[in-house]
Amino acid sequence: MYKFKNDYSEGAHRKLLEALLKHNLNQQNGYGEDIYTEEAKSNIKNYINGQCDIHFIPGGTQTNLIAITAFLRPHEACIAAKTGHIVDHETGAIEATGHKVININTPVDGKLTPELIQPVLEYHYFEHMVKPKLVYISNSTEIGTVYSKNELKNLYNFCQTNKLYLYIDGARIGNAILASDVTLQDMYNYSDAFFIGGTKNGALLGEALIIKNLDIKNEIRYIIKQRGALIAKGRIMGIQFNELFKDNLYFELAKHANNMADILTIELKKLGCSFLVESSTNQIFPIIDNKKINKLLKKFDFYIWEKFDENSSVIRLVTSWATPIKAVNAFINEYKNI
Amino acid sequence: MYKFKNDYSEGAHRKLLEALLKHNLNQQNGYGEDIYTEEAKSNIKNYINGQCDIHFIPGGTQTNLIAITAFLRPHEACIAAKTGHIVDHETGAIEATGHKVININTPVDGKLTPELIQPVLEYHYFEHMVKPKLVYISNSTEIGTVYSKNELKNLYNFCQTNKLYLYIDGARIGNAILASDVTLQDMYNYSDAFFIGGTKNGALLGEALIIKNLDIKNEIRYIIKQRGALIAKGRIMGIQFNELFKDNLYFELAKHANNMADILTIELKKLGCSFLVESSTNQIFPIIDNKKINKLLKKFDFYIWEKFDENSSVIRLVTSWATPIKAVNAFINEYKNI
Amino acid sequence: MYKFKNDYSEGAHRKLLEALLKHNLNQQNGYGEDIYTEEAKSNIKNYINGQCDIHFIPGGTQTNLIAITAFLRPHEACIAAKTGHIVDHETGAIEATGHKVININTPVDGKLTPELIQPVLEYHYFEHMVKPKLVYISNSTEIGTVYSKNELKNLYNFCQTNKLYLYIDGARIGNAILASDVTLQDMYNYSDAFFIGGTKNGALLGEALIIKNLDIKNEIRYIIKQRGALIAKGRIMGIQFNELFKDNLYFELAKHANNMADILTIELKKLGCSFLVESSTNQIFPIIDNKKINKLLKKFDFYIWEKFDENSSVIRLVTSWATPIKAVNAFINEYKNI
Amino acid sequence: MYKFKNDYSEGAHRKLLEALLKHNLNQQNGYGEDIYTEEAKSNIKNYINGQCDIHFIPGGTQTNLIAITAFLRPHEACIAAKTGHIVDHETGAIEATGHKVININTPVDGKLTPELIQPVLEYHYFEHMVKPKLVYISNSTEIGTVYSKNELKNLYNFCQTNKLYLYIDGARIGNAILASDVTLQDMYNYSDAFFIGGTKNGALLGEALIIKNLDIKNEIRYIIKQRGALIAKGRIMGIQFNELFKDNLYFELAKHANNMADILTIELKKLGCSFLVESSTNQIFPIIDNKKINKLLKKFDFYIWEKFDENSSVIRLVTSWATPIKAVNAFINEYKNI
Repeated sequence: MYKFKNDYSEGAHRKLLEALLKHNLNQQNGYGEDIYTEEAKSNIKNYINGQCDIHFIPGGTQTNLIAITAFLRPHEACIAAKTGHIVDHETGAIEATGHKVININTPVDGKLTPELIQPVLEYHYFEHMVKPKLVYISNSTEIGTVYSKNELKNLYNFCQTNKLYLYIDGARIGNAILASDVTLQDMYNYSDAFFIGGTKNGALLGEALIIKNLDIKNEIRYIIKQRGALIAKGRIMGIQFNELFKDNLYFELAKHANNMADILTIELKKLGCSFLVESSTNQIFPIIDNKKINKLLKKFDFYIWEKFDENSSVIRLVTSWATPIKAVNAFINEYKNI
Repeated sequence: MYKFKNDYSEGAHRKLLEALLKHNLNQQNGYGEDIYTEEAKSNIKNYINGQCDIHFIPGGTQTNLIAITAFLRPHEACIAAKTGHIVDHETGAIEATGHKVININTPVDGKLTPELIQPVLEYHYFEHMVKPKLVYISNSTEIGTVYSKNELKNLYNFCQTNKLYLYIDGARIGNAILASDVTLQDMYNYSDAFFIGGTKNGALLGEALIIKNLDIKNEIRYIIKQRGALIAKGRIMGIQFNELFKDNLYFELAKHANNMADILTIELKKLGCSFLVESSTNQIFPIIDNKKINKLLKKFDFYIWEKFDENSSVIRLVTSWATPIKAVNAFINEYKNI
Repeated sequence: MYKFKNDYSEGAHRKLLEALLKHNLNQQNGYGEDIYTEEAKSNIKNYINGQCDIHFIPGGTQTNLIAITAFLRPHEACIAAKTGHIVDHETGAIEATGHKVININTPVDGKLTPELIQPVLEYHYFEHMVKPKLVYISNSTEIGTVYSKNELKNLYNFCQTNKLYLYIDGARIGNAILASDVTLQDMYNYSDAFFIGGTKNGALLGEALIIKNLDIKNEIRYIIKQRGALIAKGRIMGIQFNELFKDNLYFELAKHANNMADILTIELKKLGCSFLVESSTNQIFPIIDNKKINKLLKKFDFYIWEKFDENSSVIRLVTSWATPIKAVNAFINEYKNI
Repeated sequence: MYKFKNDYSEGAHRKLLEALLKHNLNQQNGYGEDIYTEEAKSNIKNYINGQCDIHFIPGGTQTNLIAITAFLRPHEACIAAKTGHIVDHETGAIEATGHKVININTPVDGKLTPELIQPVLEYHYFEHMVKPKLVYISNSTEIGTVYSKNELKNLYNFCQTNKLYLYIDGARIGNAILASDVTLQDMYNYSDAFFIGGTKNGALLGEALIIKNLDIKNEIRYIIKQRGALIAKGRIMGIQFNELFKDNLYFELAKHANNMADILTIELKKLGCSFLVESSTNQIFPIIDNKKINKLLKKFDFYIWEKFDENSSVIRLVTSWATPIKAVNAFINEYKNI
């Protein structure tokens, strides 16, 4: 039974595992001070023209909580879309660092805009309330949508004007870049910090936190260690990111994932299926008759996202770097024939 | 130049990497709900007769902070030896969860005893002071010594009598078990929780947290997630621990590391070298003339632990599952000839 | 210019100050272990038939954060109405203890009901989300409304069924009791803990935290000390609460405050004024023409609560134990004549 | 039975209570924005030539935890003498804000010096350890000793050189100033922040936090509110500090307390009594035969500080602004005659 449940159902791209094997017995310094990590940073910097700091951290929740802890003073708060990952899907990880997450109801696309943030700034006007200081967005968002370069730029300028940090969760940044006019360079230009997700794009684990803002990057290795994220064999993230960014593999994998989702979208639309939201990344949200869903679930695994109406529901299909075209075709055939 | 700096200079034992490759494209549920993790737990349970809960967590600092957070109420504190890893080598990770670490000066062996703990309990007698509630020890300790079964049992009984939790950092538990009369079953019997270190004994990463105490294990997955340790591809720890505990590999690797250190110890002693402390695990602390140290450092890498007297220093040599006998012999030869 | 801005604009009721003077030079033990504090507890217990613990804490925010810290494990969260004081008016005090506050949009009355809470419990179903564990309500609420005995009982039963704690912020509990069929005994019967506000009902400072639930009360003095609330001269709260609960003074003061507000309400209604919400406590929310508001502000001080429509706004008038009837009459006359 | 247990056994100096009564019904803004608080700040500033910020906070533990929270980033730590109040007498209040307190064994006088701090800075050299950033001292210390102007200046200069903040707990600062060549101006000149204790020198409650360092003072009212210390009727601290600093009353009260202790010291010495440490403030530590102690305890209340030898113990006698000379004489007579 093929799973369209998420983009972390498999291990890692073969090239990454082979590189781990190849370098396995070379002795290296621990805690990210190995030559592979250096090389990985250098490869990533080929995509970014600027003085960035790069840190490899095992997971996304950990990266979010470390970055936000490093950014904020105790009374400062994050702003996020109600659907933002830090709001309801990280077991209060941000609050556990002492910071409130102010959430904003957005349109169905899950994206923040200056217009949505402005009233929050006005509302929090004095010391009996937290001080909003950091805007958290995900690109692609939790429902597969992407920010255009213009949207990103406007948001960053708004943040600059209002002395807010813009921090971007890039767990699926490859998928976002391949589905929009935004580049890695733009992500750097129009944020204070962001991360490049490895886990959901072909690595065993690892997220690369990219910090531009000088206020923030100071001494962050202390905080990475304090939160348990400075793993002894940092080499394993270095080796993998090295492979991912050596010959554009990272973007090829994201492209494949997006392509598989695009085929699903196009074919399902041809068959009359409608969607909750337009997505050109690797997460799509078709609206399907409940009886049909039950039949599909006998051959495929996926999440039911939410009820749409009495007879139908929104499902979530996620494709990945590893999704075979034959699984995609099989799904379409099944949909057609039931 | 061979490094005796630590036991995490290499990648992972070949069998673990091969298993990662073998199962790479089998789709699995995320967050430790895969079949490999189940199998790994089952294999570990073959060594432990009891109702334990097992959770795999990427790193040791993270395991410590999660376990201690889960154990303690806000006003409760840990007790640790002054040399304990949580005291000065985790960037205040425990304090960052809100808990004080009370430290105790111990004899050179770095071990805690009921006699050392008793005065701490008496001193903290009322609500203007924290309430000591958890005893943290490492086995083997940070300076390579081990607890005997009797010592462990006495300490656990003392903790039980005084309503203290006993928590054991087992980053090098394999080395301890191979160098003492303590078994994994004993570790379980005589503690409320402990962890089995993978990172320092042949895995890419991962520590297995074993929880016996029912007060504690309740809902710990929430806290693992909250602290960013519930990694998406939990399978990578499952697969590795599965290999380590399938055919006793874990203990074979620890035995090799200990053996390499034993040979160094025996041969250095023959050559007249004395040691800071008796250790039969993979960390040894010879006292060497400073000039000799400088010469050795040209061919080998290791840490100078502390000044011993005007002319000599204590160095730390660490062997691992991967240390080749020829590196050991080369070191002895070099020591002999300079 | 008379202020209807809040109920803490004056010092304390004269009897309380006189008692402070009277006992001033009697030497007492510190930290709430004085005879006045004992007597105050005993006087409060005359109103409550049950095994309650009582602790006096300087302020309301502090009481909230201490109680909630004592109640919850790290992954557990509060539930509160969107208008709840802990949500937006305590600078993230609860989040600063590590806990998320889940907020619920309520009808205009600002009250929580089982029906409003049920979906929150269903939504938070697994370990990637916080675990809702404590329901926070205020009585009277932040907009002056009160819970009836039946409403309170239903809410408490719902909490019991769902293993939730019910915690009640009683900063204005006197006003609530005088304006409803709820007694102090009911507050105790139908909650796990609540507090009796002194600051807003005639004391210089001080809130009495009443804890029924045995899970919670254990060792809370440690946490009171840890958060800086175990003040050396606990006697000053003991002496004041002693006076407040000796001859029913607490409820007389609340009655006066409510009466003053009632007169305002009745007279303003006679003059055609409508209100945002029905309140029979000491906070009322008339809707007044903006031009009229500006004129009133020349003679009285009060807060403009929110815009009502293009031409009118909701204002908040707060009366207190100290509000003189002549100020009330003057306001009504002014309203009539402008 | 007269108590020499502490300096907070009584209420407040009569002038303070009378001022509270006098201004009782004048309506004022809450949260420290009243005219009395303004006047109190102004009166304190008459003693300090400089741009200081002043905040009134109910208690000492609270002041310490707020100041330190405001000063430090998450990975930064305090340095304190082992006998420092924050180390073992505030129930881990500092650790509860996430920060480690590094403690240093000092000579019996309990004072920190550059020489004692230097090795701590050298030891904490990299990101696996906390970063020492703030030096905490008390003046007078917990055992009644005081810093001279030179000692304070040297310590401050050392801190400046090493980019450390110097923060001074002034719970008994009046007693220190009266017993040394240090003035309030010196305290300001040679620290980044300090507080002036009201609770132990004649006020019902309240400590005045004085902040010089610009890095720190920014937005501290947010943190004061967040930790529950922004009490509604800030006026009660304003009125009291206003009295204390209007006509030098604060220093007169401290002088009286010191004088009472001096008489005890001189007379006990005449009678052959020796002392643990030289103290010229209001806490003294005579060494007395155990049998004699038991007899004294029948007529006076005081703490036994520690065992001195088999037959004698150190006791602590504390005098205050309210200690009557006849109690002092009675104690000396009793000592003489038993």
